[in-house]
Amino acid sequence: MLPFIRSDLAQFTAYKPHPSSDTAEPVPTQLDRLDTNESPYDLPAELKEKLAWTYQQVIETNRYPDGGHETLKLAIAEYVNESASLLPSVFTPANISVGNGSDELIRSLLIATCLGGEGSILVANPTFSMYGILAKTLGIPVVTVGRNDVNFEIDLKAAQSAMEQTQHPPVRVVFVVHPNSPTANPLTAAELAWLRSLSEQILVVIDEAYFEFSQTTLVGELAQRPNWVILRTFSKAFRLAALRVGYCVAHPEAIAILEKVRLPYNLPSFSIVAALMALQNRQILLESIPQTLRERAKLIQALSHHSELQVAESAANFVFVRLKLNGSHPQDAALKSLHQKLGSYGTVVREISQGLRITIGTPEENARTINRLQAALANLKFS
Amino acid sequence: MLPFIRSDLAQFTAYKPHPSSDTAEPVPTQLDRLDTNESPYDLPAELKEKLAWTYQQVIETNRYPDGGHETLKLAIAEYVNESASLLPSVFTPANISVGNGSDELIRSLLIATCLGGEGSILVANPTFSMYGILAKTLGIPVVTVGRNDVNFEIDLKAAQSAMEQTQHPPVRVVFVVHPNSPTANPLTAAELAWLRSLSEQILVVIDEAYFEFSQTTLVGELAQRPNWVILRTFSKAFRLAALRVGYCVAHPEAIAILEKVRLPYNLPSFSIVAALMALQNRQILLESIPQTLRERAKLIQALSHHSELQVAESAANFVFVRLKLNGSHPQDAALKSLHQKLGSYGTVVREISQGLRITIGTPEENARTINRLQAALANLKFS
Repeated sequence: MLPFIRSDLAQFTAYKPHPSSDTAEPVPTQLDRLDTNESPYDLPAELKEKLAWTYQQVIETNRYPDGGHETLKLAIAEYVNESASLLPSVFTPANISVGNGSDELIRSLLIATCLGGEGSILVANPTFSMYGILAKTLGIPVVTVGRNDVNFEIDLKAAQSAMEQTQHPPVRVVFVVHPNSPTANPLTAAELAWLRSLSEQILVVIDEAYFEFSQTTLVGELAQRPNWVILRTFSKAFRLAALRVGYCVAHPEAIAILEKVRLPYNLPSFSIVAALMALQNRQILLESIPQTLRERAKLIQALSHHSELQVAESAANFVFVRLKLNGSHPQDAALKSLHQKLGSYGTVVREISQGLRITIGTPEENARTINRLQAALANLKFS
Repeated sequence: MLPFIRSDLAQFTAYKPHPSSDTAEPVPTQLDRLDTNESPYDLPAELKEKLAWTYQQVIETNRYPDGGHETLKLAIAEYVNESASLLPSVFTPANISVGNGSDELIRSLLIATCLGGEGSILVANPTFSMYGILAKTLGIPVVTVGRNDVNFEIDLKAAQSAMEQTQHPPVRVVFVVHPNSPTANPLTAAELAWLRSLSEQILVVIDEAYFEFSQTTLVGELAQRPNWVILRTFSKAFRLAALRVGYCVAHPEAIAILEKVRLPYNLPSFSIVAALMALQNRQILLESIPQTLRERAKLIQALSHHSELQVAESAANFVFVRLKLNGSHPQDAALKSLHQKLGSYGTVVREISQGLRITIGTPEENARTINRLQAALANLKFS
């Protein structure tokens, strides 16, 4: 161990992208990649062409990017207002900060609030793992509570008690996803009431990465709640996962701090231009959402026919499925086997939190998901 | 002030990109942008076309980037070996980590070593400001020493004494640029001897952002020094400033920690492909270096004719100039005036550390730099 490295980092395990190009395992040639909640559709060819042309004709590769992001922030503010049917003047660029994916914004929020022993964070597992991972890389304690096993609502009693009892350092930030990943449920009325009841000393981060699929947003409440910030991303419905653009909507004072903390040239010029172009063409890009929602309903219905599966409702572009075998059966081994079997058939899904998280893909992919899951279940022979 | 924000961040001033597109000031239409040490040349048109084609045909915008970077790291390792005339087997991908610009790597190094009151950093001013800025955003104390006013060598006596006397927390990382920015001088024999004398408890970060211009590298010493890491970038000689790719060469154990700390998808697919393509075409891209070095010599010679200017030698793609007026003259005001005048003529340079840092541009730009500086000096009328 190198002596200048923080000792608490040695034991720490990093986030593992799934699957990585580094994986040495052989994979079928035509994979249905349903493990990272991406859109199954690339940008339309005309848009890729326009973007390629813009790179060739407008972007100077040798020059640093625009470090201020004003044009992009203006376009985002406009979209945010529209997305919640707000007046065009409600959110302005002063309410927006953009990041190298939401990941960078999560890290900046942690740096701005909890470093140096000033705070812990609270998360309700299962949830998006990056909050905890990024906190740990920064030496920030992570307080976890559980969720209801059926509807995945946060154990609010445990959460409230953790808020009251955690000291040295106290909880300063609460992270929630709306709808949650991997469980796909939106915040419930009780969860919302609890978040509203928190003191203004507590930063509440509401990650709306899947907003375009849920069509439920809390941005309308931000004006009344200076301690809430909302994260969104271009990686899902806007189809820009390859280019890494996320954004934060918040009180101008919180934004000013995020702008201070971020790397000065955090977004490449190509990503800035792509995000702008995606917003300008949002009608075209978001046209595929109704299809995704219909496909989601079909998938949930088909999977519900299998008595071995517990299928959760979903407000996102993925579904979460658990096995319900009789008590004596080794559930973990069965799940692992199911996951592997599916993968060997060519459908890659995410095994996570004692369940499978399955992204809604194209209609063809989803049909294969149904067939392959049926075959894999039959293969398990555990009835 | 929002109560959940770290109180030490309130006073903190962020790095200001120069100039930003957000600047409201009117600027001449045709600017010579010689303030950020970029290459004056974009990628050749054929290469931009190839990159645009690759985006359209190969990159799936909707899919997350390769989070493992193996192919890029292999190409970088090969280039690093070549750049120091080392055997092809000396550095491998296990010695390389890539970042969203070197900025991200600097932040990761700080996070890995000094957080939580475990360490301070030492820098010798004037130097690249991001080390100190990023440290402060993380609440890490910055110990500064000075430099010799003529050759800009680090005040080694002060540095050694700072290392010995700094406690709570002790210095854990020393940052140097080789050659230094803004003063353009490479590490001297005495500086190198001092760095070699430091304990293995101290991480030494050697930033070789300008290596392709200095052609002096310390990568050959890394095998003997597990506490040294070397940073490089694609933003200068490789002309990719817009796309934000930096890399770190280090001991595999240090790299493993950087890989743990970094954001899992820190580089957009387009940037990964562009960096790979730049390396594959390095002969073409680096062809412009001899011209830059000739132009640098011409600029230094021309500026040396002005008795009011103190022009430093340079091992980089920029020169550093100070005014030497007689003692009674207000140097700061004269420098500000000179900087403004130059800007009003259309040559944008960086006013920094009581001097001007002037990037070597195209021959035409450099000729204008000489003429405009002459005119601006005449205008100052301070003799």
